[in-house]
Amino acid sequence: MELGLPAVVRDPALPARVRIHEVGARDGLQNESSLVPVEVKAEFIARLAAAGLRTVEATSFVHPKWVPQLADAEELLPRVTGLREQYQGLRLPVLVPNERGLERALARGADEIAVFASATETFAQRNLNRSMAEALEMFRPVVTRAVEAGVGARGYLSMCFGDPWEGPVGADQVVTAGLRLLELGCAELSLGDTIGVATPGQVAGLLEAFDRAGVPVERLAVHFHDTYGQALSNTLTALRHGITVVDASAGGLGGCPYAKSATGNLATEDLVWMLHGLGIETGVDLTALAATSAWLAGRLGRPSPSRAVQALVGAATLPSSTG
Amino acid sequence: MELGLPAVVRDPALPARVRIHEVGARDGLQNESSLVPVEVKAEFIARLAAAGLRTVEATSFVHPKWVPQLADAEELLPRVTGLREQYQGLRLPVLVPNERGLERALARGADEIAVFASATETFAQRNLNRSMAEALEMFRPVVTRAVEAGVGARGYLSMCFGDPWEGPVGADQVVTAGLRLLELGCAELSLGDTIGVATPGQVAGLLEAFDRAGVPVERLAVHFHDTYGQALSNTLTALRHGITVVDASAGGLGGCPYAKSATGNLATEDLVWMLHGLGIETGVDLTALAATSAWLAGRLGRPSPSRAVQALVGAATLPSSTG
Repeated sequence: MELGLPAVVRDPALPARVRIHEVGARDGLQNESSLVPVEVKAEFIARLAAAGLRTVEATSFVHPKWVPQLADAEELLPRVTGLREQYQGLRLPVLVPNERGLERALARGADEIAVFASATETFAQRNLNRSMAEALEMFRPVVTRAVEAGVGARGYLSMCFGDPWEGPVGADQVVTAGLRLLELGCAELSLGDTIGVATPGQVAGLLEAFDRAGVPVERLAVHFHDTYGQALSNTLTALRHGITVVDASAGGLGGCPYAKSATGNLATEDLVWMLHGLGIETGVDLTALAATSAWLAGRLGRPSPSRAVQALVGAATLPSSTG
Repeated sequence: MELGLPAVVRDPALPARVRIHEVGARDGLQNESSLVPVEVKAEFIARLAAAGLRTVEATSFVHPKWVPQLADAEELLPRVTGLREQYQGLRLPVLVPNERGLERALARGADEIAVFASATETFAQRNLNRSMAEALEMFRPVVTRAVEAGVGARGYLSMCFGDPWEGPVGADQVVTAGLRLLELGCAELSLGDTIGVATPGQVAGLLEAFDRAGVPVERLAVHFHDTYGQALSNTLTALRHGITVVDASAGGLGGCPYAKSATGNLATEDLVWMLHGLGIETGVDLTALAATSAWLAGRLGRPSPSRAVQALVGAATLPSSTG
């Protein structure tokens, strides 16, 4: 049996190309309970680049006490920076929590960083032990110093739609926090539905609010979680509103820390299946990507939560696709 | 921790209300490897009705040799027909393969039937051992007799987007087969992506082709599979094209028979989460529905594949919602 990829159907309202910001190696692995050897992480990143991904978030320079899964960041980054010569245009951003983390990242060859802020007061307190305003101010010297060092910065804004403690989050509040991150010097703002509760109407509402605030859509990315199965419909809605940068995690790696049994990040394979079906280019070879996720799932000792990976790896013949 | 449901955001392009055609008890259970006792099936259907579903496909009167999982249809149907008095407007359609099946169904109190046809030649041959044209003619006396008996008929059309043997399926071919089913007397036509390969552009393309052929959208339903994670984005696209009847399976019951490890039907809970988030009424109590799916999963001895069921049942506090 050979499963054909769906025929390409183009829609002029959708972008011709989407850049996938692959977060599996950082956001995915930081939520894994098992410690993954540094060689496996380096091979994972190399295989993601070989599969055509050109933005591969590599690790986090957060203190090992908080995220022991990524305690090997200083050892890992130099193992993969050589990929930038091998694959033209490859970016390997790393998360940094503060100035100390930034210096460690720069010393190990980081050429792009990301900071992680919250759109809600409660999550800022719980995650960073600071008020939202204090947390944003903490990032000011980090982003300033990064930009001075010629290193691009991305701002993650979490809990943009709902918060486990505060419930639904208003768009105005998210826009205010997002404007602060952009004003600090972040080139790109990734809007995160950290607990996966959003539905398409809310996505449209938030993007329209950013538009009213004068933020060019080119500076925005979306980061959806599949906790309630909504990530891909939300992504489709975002694409219709001009978004062209989408965060996703190979194989759907990474659980939601607030609901033990919930699934986590949007799987890159599910995203690529939709984008290629819509005639949107990604540069990704879906077969190679699914094989990479299946390989890592074997190393982690459990099946990939991605629907597309399960279907492709379970099927007798893998279709070949580069879009 | 209490997870709030997302705030309701209305979009005038979307319908105010969607009727869910619940297929878990038939399409779901017919693909289960374990035999489920008839009392459990009857309780499942009763709980689905109690959760607010008003179209609950109950079973199939296909020959027990072909679908042993539903060999108890004659015993099951009389156990649940009383629910129609308890819940106003409740419909309990049953699948029938031929005139013999129809007579058995009518004798046991069926008030609505469905027939299952294919949009592709190869699947018609493999599933029914007939050409497409022969299969459609075979249904003519079935639908005619049902309508004469005052029993409504629905036509399922499978493989509307892709076929494991033929690859992508053209819209013209699907429209031709669909028109035949409607002309036979089917009140409603359910367009099925049996192998789950479709993406939103193809859904739009097929619905536009039916519109050009003069078929009122009120006579169409959609039936998506989550094999590649695409079911909900495809549903959203269909809603934007005027569809108001959506097939779904409680807890995502039912695998795809063509890819062993693939996931199957769109989970009703994932659908309801999106619809309620969009402010679309369904009449369904999501908490009661997720509890029902979790209960059945326990009886089947494996977790529900629905993302929303996993999230809701895993969370400490279940949100309450009736939309």
